[in-house]
Amino acid sequence: MLGSGRVRVVDARRPRVPRGHALLRLRVAGICSTDLELQRGYYGFSGVPGHEFVADVVACADPSWIGRRVVGEINVACRRCAWCRRGLGRHCPRRSVLGIVRQPGAFQQCFTLPLCNLHRVPDALTDERAVFVEPLAAACEILEQVRVERAARMALLGDGRLAQLVARVLVHAGAEVVMYGRHAAKLALARRAGATARQLPKRLPAKAFALVVDATGSARGLAQAVALCAPRGTVVLKSTVHDRVELDTAPVVVDELTLIGSRCGPFAPALRLLASGAIDVDGLVTESFALRDAPRAFARAAERGVLKVLLRG
Amino acid sequence: MLGSGRVRVVDARRPRVPRGHALLRLRVAGICSTDLELQRGYYGFSGVPGHEFVADVVACADPSWIGRRVVGEINVACRRCAWCRRGLGRHCPRRSVLGIVRQPGAFQQCFTLPLCNLHRVPDALTDERAVFVEPLAAACEILEQVRVERAARMALLGDGRLAQLVARVLVHAGAEVVMYGRHAAKLALARRAGATARQLPKRLPAKAFALVVDATGSARGLAQAVALCAPRGTVVLKSTVHDRVELDTAPVVVDELTLIGSRCGPFAPALRLLASGAIDVDGLVTESFALRDAPRAFARAAERGVLKVLLRG
Repeated sequence: MLGSGRVRVVDARRPRVPRGHALLRLRVAGICSTDLELQRGYYGFSGVPGHEFVADVVACADPSWIGRRVVGEINVACRRCAWCRRGLGRHCPRRSVLGIVRQPGAFQQCFTLPLCNLHRVPDALTDERAVFVEPLAAACEILEQVRVERAARMALLGDGRLAQLVARVLVHAGAEVVMYGRHAAKLALARRAGATARQLPKRLPAKAFALVVDATGSARGLAQAVALCAPRGTVVLKSTVHDRVELDTAPVVVDELTLIGSRCGPFAPALRLLASGAIDVDGLVTESFALRDAPRAFARAAERGVLKVLLRG
Repeated sequence: MLGSGRVRVVDARRPRVPRGHALLRLRVAGICSTDLELQRGYYGFSGVPGHEFVADVVACADPSWIGRRVVGEINVACRRCAWCRRGLGRHCPRRSVLGIVRQPGAFQQCFTLPLCNLHRVPDALTDERAVFVEPLAAACEILEQVRVERAARMALLGDGRLAQLVARVLVHAGAEVVMYGRHAAKLALARRAGATARQLPKRLPAKAFALVVDATGSARGLAQAVALCAPRGTVVLKSTVHDRVELDTAPVVVDELTLIGSRCGPFAPALRLLASGAIDVDGLVTESFALRDAPRAFARAAERGVLKVLLRG
């Protein structure tokens, strides 16, 4: 499958397996907004996308992994540089990233990842739930960056794929989450997950929340998040946007706001939250397609009102 | 004197002195970039600007203040709201701000401020140095917001009035400050104050600093600061810009940067730094004018290469 505007199905070749890597056979993969952005030209991407997956280990040097059902961290770090030595391989400047940067992705029958990136999926956790580990980890990253007090009131902009997971993580952390979105059905889903969910009003309440998460995936989200944020408050930027964003920085300076970019997160807590049933992702899958129907799946994922679209290996 | 594009000298009236306020007679005031932005329409300002000053107390309820030489905090807070009770009157939503928001400023013979905003100036501290307390406090605010380790290497964008003070504060805190600016004479001043000062290159070193302060006062500064900032690093926004800023937020998200807006700071440490001689501001005044020459003073302050311009009462 190739990016750069078009989604095409191409002949699969069994990839070369580098030292320390495992050969993986896809069970199920999820299409994320980043995949849609890649298609629009983000990162000048061309290649096989896909970074949310559940797969079986087909081959690797350590026989104990063979046949295991796994999910995998997407940053392939050098493991030698100062960042890696500090345990921050997710920021390794030499990293490749599965399906995003110089690492063929999961939207194919077979692909590879280093063994050290893999996490076994407990038997009781279905593929349809485990495929949410990667984006749920990204939602969990917020808790690594920001102190979320129990009963703290916070705003969440967006009601899409990632926003739904962010809502669940923050509600589980004990926060009172007020989600602002545009889709009644998605807002209802968030409500069932314990959030207060509201149609995005013409005028958002000004400076009303000490913590605001922008998960709109839209270039307008940041300005709305800044407007919602109280003096000395924090705005978490949770979506990558392939657009220049226009921002009036005066309120950021005058109200001394903190803006924090947030990307990939820790797999272990995300896996625990799903395996224990503490976070429920049922209802977030809109439709599943076979890999050969990837172009249709991408088109479906880009439609208004659609949540997670899966590809089956 | 009136803002809104033109600077005019108008007849001074002795102001009414509200309860708890002191009547102040100007000794010397400084023109800051915010004053120039107000003139360009920032905040829709019209009135008497001026918020950096040294003055004598002429009248107030407490006789022990009469005749004292003072500087004054510029945020006039309600002292009753939740922000004020938390000691954050600088963010009181009902505040007025001297010479900026609903509070006639210091560019006149007589003006008023609450007694609780005033700080006595030690006899040994000259007017020409004490007038830097307010902007130096704004520079000190960075140390309230960001942990600056001894010998930490950081970048400072800008070589102007505020950047000069930020450089001095950060050098005094033990940091290795690399200033990027456009004016050889200003860079030389920063070098004498202990900073490494460099002509702004065509290509800034990418992701090279864990801490970057944008004190350019320019709409382009933020994008440059983000480009300079290392993954997981911090960018301090130290200047208010009366422009929409265009920003590619992808590196903020991907590198998980923290952007912090920074405005007014604590007067007490700034006053101590100046009174003890720990921070030297000599050489930062370009020219002084009489109040009646304010239009010329504003024009001078807006010229390229000019640092602080003073108005004398």
